[in-house]
Amino acid sequence: MRLSRAFLPTLKETPAEAQVVSHRLMLRAGMIRQTSAGIYAWLPLGWRALQRVEQIVREEQDAAGAQEILMPTIQTADLWRTSGRYDAYGPEMLRLKDRHEREMLYGPTNEEMVTDIFRSYAKSYRDLPRNLYHIQWKFRDEVRPRFGVMRGREFLMKDAYSFDLDAVGAKESYAAMFMAYLRTFARMDLKAVPMRADTGPIGGNLSHEFVVLAETGESQVYLDRDILDWNPLAATMRPQASMQHFQSYYAATEEMHDEKAWQMVPQERRLIARGIEVGHIFYFGTKYSAAMGLQVSSPDGRMVTPEMGSYGIGVSRLVGALIEANHDEAGIKWPDAVAPFTATVINLKVGNATTDAVSEQIYAALTPNAVYDDRDDRAGVKFADADLMGFPWQVIIGPRGAAAGKVELKRRATDERWELSPEEAIGHIFASPLV
Amino acid sequence: MRLSRAFLPTLKETPAEAQVVSHRLMLRAGMIRQTSAGIYAWLPLGWRALQRVEQIVREEQDAAGAQEILMPTIQTADLWRTSGRYDAYGPEMLRLKDRHEREMLYGPTNEEMVTDIFRSYAKSYRDLPRNLYHIQWKFRDEVRPRFGVMRGREFLMKDAYSFDLDAVGAKESYAAMFMAYLRTFARMDLKAVPMRADTGPIGGNLSHEFVVLAETGESQVYLDRDILDWNPLAATMRPQASMQHFQSYYAATEEMHDEKAWQMVPQERRLIARGIEVGHIFYFGTKYSAAMGLQVSSPDGRMVTPEMGSYGIGVSRLVGALIEANHDEAGIKWPDAVAPFTATVINLKVGNATTDAVSEQIYAALTPNAVYDDRDDRAGVKFADADLMGFPWQVIIGPRGAAAGKVELKRRATDERWELSPEEAIGHIFASPLV
Repeated sequence: MRLSRAFLPTLKETPAEAQVVSHRLMLRAGMIRQTSAGIYAWLPLGWRALQRVEQIVREEQDAAGAQEILMPTIQTADLWRTSGRYDAYGPEMLRLKDRHEREMLYGPTNEEMVTDIFRSYAKSYRDLPRNLYHIQWKFRDEVRPRFGVMRGREFLMKDAYSFDLDAVGAKESYAAMFMAYLRTFARMDLKAVPMRADTGPIGGNLSHEFVVLAETGESQVYLDRDILDWNPLAATMRPQASMQHFQSYYAATEEMHDEKAWQMVPQERRLIARGIEVGHIFYFGTKYSAAMGLQVSSPDGRMVTPEMGSYGIGVSRLVGALIEANHDEAGIKWPDAVAPFTATVINLKVGNATTDAVSEQIYAALTPNAVYDDRDDRAGVKFADADLMGFPWQVIIGPRGAAAGKVELKRRATDERWELSPEEAIGHIFASPLV
Repeated sequence: MRLSRAFLPTLKETPAEAQVVSHRLMLRAGMIRQTSAGIYAWLPLGWRALQRVEQIVREEQDAAGAQEILMPTIQTADLWRTSGRYDAYGPEMLRLKDRHEREMLYGPTNEEMVTDIFRSYAKSYRDLPRNLYHIQWKFRDEVRPRFGVMRGREFLMKDAYSFDLDAVGAKESYAAMFMAYLRTFARMDLKAVPMRADTGPIGGNLSHEFVVLAETGESQVYLDRDILDWNPLAATMRPQASMQHFQSYYAATEEMHDEKAWQMVPQERRLIARGIEVGHIFYFGTKYSAAMGLQVSSPDGRMVTPEMGSYGIGVSRLVGALIEANHDEAGIKWPDAVAPFTATVINLKVGNATTDAVSEQIYAALTPNAVYDDRDDRAGVKFADADLMGFPWQVIIGPRGAAAGKVELKRRATDERWELSPEEAIGHIFASPLV
């Protein structure tokens, strides 16, 4: 994408309304624009980041055996009356009436709807286990939406729902999602720690939050530092064994913190940090299947009520969390796996035949994963925008270097710089792990 | 995907509520499930088809220079009061109030919002031209939703919005979208004819509908048969010249039909047919930019009100239209480019060591673009489901053939059949144009 023709409107000023750094940087980098309180439009740069995050979430759900569907945003109130949650949910639920005065709502989650869909088809144990997920916009009418996409009202969530014949199977499904979540966040270069959590209004008796450590996190967390050494992408055990391994380390949010257990952690391994919740998983047994009359025949002919779990990832929130965890004074430092573009090609002298030719050559080689700063603007503006938008690589082409067959390659995250030929610079970028 | 573990619930009975063939087949093939009147959940098969269609739409928008964003579903009433459309829109607009009693609505289209976003950033002629599009769920509260996803209430639309400095530029943008639309539909093997159309409530003075010819179409259309001979994928002229060429043929919907002009078409070329509208484009000048105060500075320093157009494709409706245009008594016949899967591998004797081994080998080679019917079920059920779901290729593995090193390859659209080795069958499928 050529910046001279792109819609990538960066801001020089820091917007006054933004309290947290991810919100400030997303506004300044032209990623999002608020259209009303807690509701955002995603501009081209933000939209690409959101798509990259969404795709990693999708791939790991698919790899774990979950099947993608898409449920609608608008649901009937009747569905929620079946489970008793229509009255219980409170003012965070956006309620509305259609032209025939039927009570509807904008879905904040989908336990009822997916159970209703599943019971229409599932008849026997052969139809289990299944795990259905979708990635769809949700609405929760927060009293005070804030922190940009971190606590918006309209937000993108991945929610999966597992159906199993019995508790043993349900716990296997839970463990599969537990490990898929760790893999998902690890692929984004995020340290997300699973923490035993309260089940809250979803209900049930087993639940974990996945918390990204970031100085600007909203809540305080307590963990055994050693849990951070484990790379879930290297896990070779079966999901249940891997999950048990992770659970053997102390890790708790403030609400679930247990001072006694905490004292058992060797002092030098105790870490008190700030965290951002990016995922939450629940095993809640037959709560919804029983309420909604989902039954299947077992191998011995009895009718059985399947055991369920639900598994959420805040996809739009993750974009904010990624920036909270990867930035400096100058702007965003995208991890390679989720960068909206891999590189920016900075032509320091647009109109100079040599810099133009070299820039075009490099841009062509890196398309469609690069932007080309071909604007007729000062070098300082271009450097500042490049650091602000934060793509992993910058290729800087000036007239003197270009005449000598050299360009400068800069790694945004580390500020390392190399003087290379155009071909070497391209090769270097392609050799990086995740282009 | 293994059918024994998939959530691909086909129905044997024809659902009584479905009046048109695409609706019947989408329900029977387990593509969608109605969750309330005119609102559907997309099950795995339907979701994959929708994604394939969406991706082709996206690629052609990108190729035409449009830039993807994502605007939210919920908008403020105030935005629509600025243009005067809040009161004009009528009961098809889903209106609601948030917890603070602010008037909001579920967007049926986005002219106001995109103009509001664009005016926040665009300051000068250098910020033009731009074309911003998004692919987002919309809601129109139809009195009588029907025909499944062809006339639903919650539906997926691609809507693009162009901003130009003057009418000359705006018409170039219009022509670029005109040709992008023809390419989009042609890539899906659909004959979509551009027809001069009424601008309706969007306003403006130039508009075309894109109509797919299908016997079951909702409206009658009149066209010069020769327009069907032109392949937009082979067009080499600039968009405006190509568009003029297409416009030189008579093609009109019933509302715009002009009997006098019709008589000028040679009698043997006059075709009266049924059609389904799948796209609609508008050039409406400064209607929204003027109402909302969008102005930029021109090269000579004057303030200018940009000229706009908007361009819609009914993405979810296209899935229905594709089935209307591609089916027979037995089920769907997916065009290769939009098939949810390219092939189905049918094991006629699950448990037989040879058929199992050959089936697994073929399935592995075709993954992830194939399903594997590994269900313990009768051959008749498997054949019927394969024809119903309508993937372009069927690979049929029976015990006698497998023992002799042969499988049967069937082309769903034509019912052609070949007896081949597994390797030949795989090679044949990979050699087909769009795997």
